[in-house]
Amino acid sequence: MADKPTHIHPIFDRILQRQDKETQLGQRAVVVWLTGLSGSGKSTIAQALERQLHQDGYFTKLLDGDNIRTGLNNNLGFSAEDRQENIRRIAETAKLFLDGGIICLCSFVSPTRAIRAMAREIVGAEDFLEVYVNAPLAVCEDRDVKGLYKKARAGEIKDFTGIDAPFEAPEAPFLELHTGTETLETSVQRLYDALKPRIGATQQD
Amino acid sequence: MADKPTHIHPIFDRILQRQDKETQLGQRAVVVWLTGLSGSGKSTIAQALERQLHQDGYFTKLLDGDNIRTGLNNNLGFSAEDRQENIRRIAETAKLFLDGGIICLCSFVSPTRAIRAMAREIVGAEDFLEVYVNAPLAVCEDRDVKGLYKKARAGEIKDFTGIDAPFEAPEAPFLELHTGTETLETSVQRLYDALKPRIGATQQD
Repeated sequence: MADKPTHIHPIFDRILQRQDKETQLGQRAVVVWLTGLSGSGKSTIAQALERQLHQDGYFTKLLDGDNIRTGLNNNLGFSAEDRQENIRRIAETAKLFLDGGIICLCSFVSPTRAIRAMAREIVGAEDFLEVYVNAPLAVCEDRDVKGLYKKARAGEIKDFTGIDAPFEAPEAPFLELHTGTETLETSVQRLYDALKPRIGATQQD
Repeated sequence: MADKPTHIHPIFDRILQRQDKETQLGQRAVVVWLTGLSGSGKSTIAQALERQLHQDGYFTKLLDGDNIRTGLNNNLGFSAEDRQENIRRIAETAKLFLDGGIICLCSFVSPTRAIRAMAREIVGAEDFLEVYVNAPLAVCEDRDVKGLYKKARAGEIKDFTGIDAPFEAPEAPFLELHTGTETLETSVQRLYDALKPRIGATQQD
């Protein structure tokens, strides 16, 4: 990215390459970026997909709010600026896993087209598979697994996506999952089937 | 870490565990943290070690200035605050790799005991192997591979470790490598031998 600031550390080609790692793991790396409302099922799908991939011999890393907001991004809040920095760091981290030959599953609301475009640019468009986990707001709010919608309705959480902040649906996602109507198993299977040609056949196939 | 701020994302045990990943890779994960002056040979050692580990079937990730300062931390400068945030993010990222069962090699000057103590706390002391890459300043400055010492002496870079900012030697490192007197091959072999009992035997052994 030509417009990045120059630092005192020049880049040299001194590190084992992504292809070496992909060969070692017997797979092709990719970033699967799940976007959707809170409660739409992103992380549930990501976790089930990861278990399935693991069982079939693929090597993955799952990034989601649970392991990012408590660690790398524990000094960020929920202002517009912090939300952007949150996604920026996540995309850069996903790229580190990608460059390591690892299939990286990212599960984040990432509500705007602009913020996902940024993630896509950081990761590289050819390796960024945007998956729209699409459930109606009413379904997500009815589930309210984490009790966040209730808090948002009560005004305890501001700028909550779907309540008082917009979610902009992807215009051309790699795949759209209808988690309001299809079962978890169906969603995971559809994603797995779509992913398979992109990640190669493992030795177990 | 009890003093971390509370976020709206609670932690649940829903992700494949580190042990699952370690079993898959046939290794035990660890963070190898190489500290020392610029030009002491940290990254050269890390790269050679990574090639050796790769050749022997271990799965690794190398983090250094080249892939961190140009990406995840490209919005940080070299103030004291930014240097601390630089190392904090690196340690959190290393922990993500560690939790993924991956042997993570980190090559950063990380000049103060306080900053390395922070990294150790984030990673977890039992998984943090501090390696002191110890070459005399005169040797590092004489090499000056990146031309940074020259710039520091000319005042073009401020607070440069060894010139106008201190390097605090580790008090009880896992291993100390004397890169001013021993060959690269010796340093790498010594590190590899020390590491071996910590990462387990691969199926190739």
